[in-house]
Amino acid sequence: MNRPNIVVLGAGYGGMITTTRLQKMLGANEANITLVNKHNYHYQTTWLHENAAGTLHQDRTRIKISDVVDTNRVNFVQDTVVSIQPEEKKVKLEDGELDYDYLVIGLGFEAETFGISGLKEHAFSITNINNSRLIREHIDYTFAQYNNQKDEHKEDLNIVVGGAGFTGIEFVGEMANRIPELCEEYDVPRDKVRLINVEAAPTVLPGFDEALVEYAMNLLEGKGVEFKTGTMLKEVREDSILVEKDEQQEVIPTNTVVWAAGVRGNSIVEESGFETMRGRVKVTEDLRVSGYDDVFIVGDCALIINEETDRPYPPTAQIAIQEAVQTAKNLQTLVRGGDKLEGFVPNLQGTVASLGEGKAIGVILDGKKLFGWTASVMKKVIDNRYLLKLGGIGLLLKKGKFNIFTK
Amino acid sequence: MNRPNIVVLGAGYGGMITTTRLQKMLGANEANITLVNKHNYHYQTTWLHENAAGTLHQDRTRIKISDVVDTNRVNFVQDTVVSIQPEEKKVKLEDGELDYDYLVIGLGFEAETFGISGLKEHAFSITNINNSRLIREHIDYTFAQYNNQKDEHKEDLNIVVGGAGFTGIEFVGEMANRIPELCEEYDVPRDKVRLINVEAAPTVLPGFDEALVEYAMNLLEGKGVEFKTGTMLKEVREDSILVEKDEQQEVIPTNTVVWAAGVRGNSIVEESGFETMRGRVKVTEDLRVSGYDDVFIVGDCALIINEETDRPYPPTAQIAIQEAVQTAKNLQTLVRGGDKLEGFVPNLQGTVASLGEGKAIGVILDGKKLFGWTASVMKKVIDNRYLLKLGGIGLLLKKGKFNIFTK
Repeated sequence: MNRPNIVVLGAGYGGMITTTRLQKMLGANEANITLVNKHNYHYQTTWLHENAAGTLHQDRTRIKISDVVDTNRVNFVQDTVVSIQPEEKKVKLEDGELDYDYLVIGLGFEAETFGISGLKEHAFSITNINNSRLIREHIDYTFAQYNNQKDEHKEDLNIVVGGAGFTGIEFVGEMANRIPELCEEYDVPRDKVRLINVEAAPTVLPGFDEALVEYAMNLLEGKGVEFKTGTMLKEVREDSILVEKDEQQEVIPTNTVVWAAGVRGNSIVEESGFETMRGRVKVTEDLRVSGYDDVFIVGDCALIINEETDRPYPPTAQIAIQEAVQTAKNLQTLVRGGDKLEGFVPNLQGTVASLGEGKAIGVILDGKKLFGWTASVMKKVIDNRYLLKLGGIGLLLKKGKFNIFTK
Repeated sequence: MNRPNIVVLGAGYGGMITTTRLQKMLGANEANITLVNKHNYHYQTTWLHENAAGTLHQDRTRIKISDVVDTNRVNFVQDTVVSIQPEEKKVKLEDGELDYDYLVIGLGFEAETFGISGLKEHAFSITNINNSRLIREHIDYTFAQYNNQKDEHKEDLNIVVGGAGFTGIEFVGEMANRIPELCEEYDVPRDKVRLINVEAAPTVLPGFDEALVEYAMNLLEGKGVEFKTGTMLKEVREDSILVEKDEQQEVIPTNTVVWAAGVRGNSIVEESGFETMRGRVKVTEDLRVSGYDDVFIVGDCALIINEETDRPYPPTAQIAIQEAVQTAKNLQTLVRGGDKLEGFVPNLQGTVASLGEGKAIGVILDGKKLFGWTASVMKKVIDNRYLLKLGGIGLLLKKGKFNIFTK
């Protein structure tokens, strides 16, 4: 019995789909499959902004790994990856070490701080269950604090979101819906609260269709969101930020800065000796690392150039899932002695951004634009399809989003 | 028309009962009644520990003043009292001034810090809706923080309660029930959490019946509460406390210290030129201030000596309510030209301390001891009777505690 060891690092979209596919596609005698993850749960990264805003509980967003991974077939190791040693074909964990014959790196993104002073120390980011839940509790806490201060502390009620990309806008959308509830819970007048979005680019959702952007901005401004586009975040301090627009500087009091303006690949990948750009590896056509035929990368750490635009594909759930499906196929081929791997071809299905409370905007496959409720239904359809793909009808029923009229 | 102005300061137990009695006992032509309070709601101080622990929502504890005070009859002024000027018969408010012919001071207690270093800066107290809600949110926040720290921060999970009097023990009881929920919500192992009660006296609930104290301690220790009796709190720092027992000092890491070890009268009363002891005025038999026949004090700022024990009656809701009933009667007499006021005689009905989740201990009128569920039912009966007295059957149905099996 010389079964190869397949080790999958990370139970995000890429790692989970790779693992669940492999457990179906390979017989127990064909390979040992090991999945390594820090927590005993997988989570939907694209829902975290709702957990952070407090509009959706984190238990809706996360899925117990053992609910979808067959732990009789897959060796699940709950541990933290410390380093990858591709020359020795080893992965170092906090509490151990693993040898692999094939490695699938599905380690997710990290926030990119662009060296902005104080950002690392004082800003929050929406990257996992723990820090999203912390944002929710932090905002609750600052609102609770407001009426306990002798003098008015405006920083308690000013929420600043850095970045008007997808996560930034989606979080702002949820937050705008959450604020009236917070005001009621903590006896805070609504007009004292500010929700400010700071974006360096001249418009929100840069690159998105103009009509959709306008729809989103109108909707969100109608709910009291202040957009500061063309504005650079220069510094984050303990209870304020410094921004700059057209060489004019402004200080905004705040102790809640949520940074959603940039992501990068994982620092573990960067430190593993692979050639990286901001933590991402420019992978081969079949998603392997050049020079390391036994190492695949799926998800946020894989850099693939879109030849049409000559720019990298964005690190989305959609692409991570497709990469994982392809990687599982190619691993099957390799384990069975084949050597002709299939190249990966992204199949872009469109993009939908949620704006909170049954509203969204999107562009689908054929370039058609979706607004408002229609787009929000489409968003739920996408999310539900993923659940079905990951864990079948059981998981869909347990964690799906079915109320198409609201959340 | 020379109607006297009756001004009631504070909408606590004493102020509210005085006001609602007066609005019934005096005709509209007999007197102008003004009630001054910082918030537009009254709250049950004896329930605040539940709000602080997060086991009862603050909206259950508070009652809109206009729900029980007839605002056609009573002039309700939502403002903060700045000072009382008894020589000029004036009350200064933050946004105005009031003249009175008769004044009823129902301003509540404040926390007594006994000069303990750092207590004022770093400890919480359970004295109103705002700071009780803040305690709840603070604890949520530190639990949420725990899994976001690189190294273990024990101070996030150690909750220290200073004082094993009524409030301290009742809060500890609620907190002990809340902790398992917090652990689940924030993915924190229960055995990492400590709930520590620090009391300078050699036993908890000093002065209470021994058998009842033993019952309470056993029950609470069974839920993981650590009692440190005979222990002095020497210093509160940002993320730890220093305690001393038998000349041995110990540092306990914590960023949650809830101080429930001492109360004093209101500093506004102290600064008004009356003779006070820790903010309390030793009132005459008919609850007036010696030398100021037009000033009554009800509740926490009134000091009355229990002649049986030669010690002051404790500042309880029970006594405040009885004082208010007497004061309303005496004001009726005065307004109608009488001058024979009735002296106040406390009618102690017994005492019940809740231990959380359908458990309590108590002593009733005839000295009978109550344990566990029976005592907890009695506690609810007492609370419900107050609601009935304050706002009739409507208020009782709205805010009463009817589930005698749990909360």
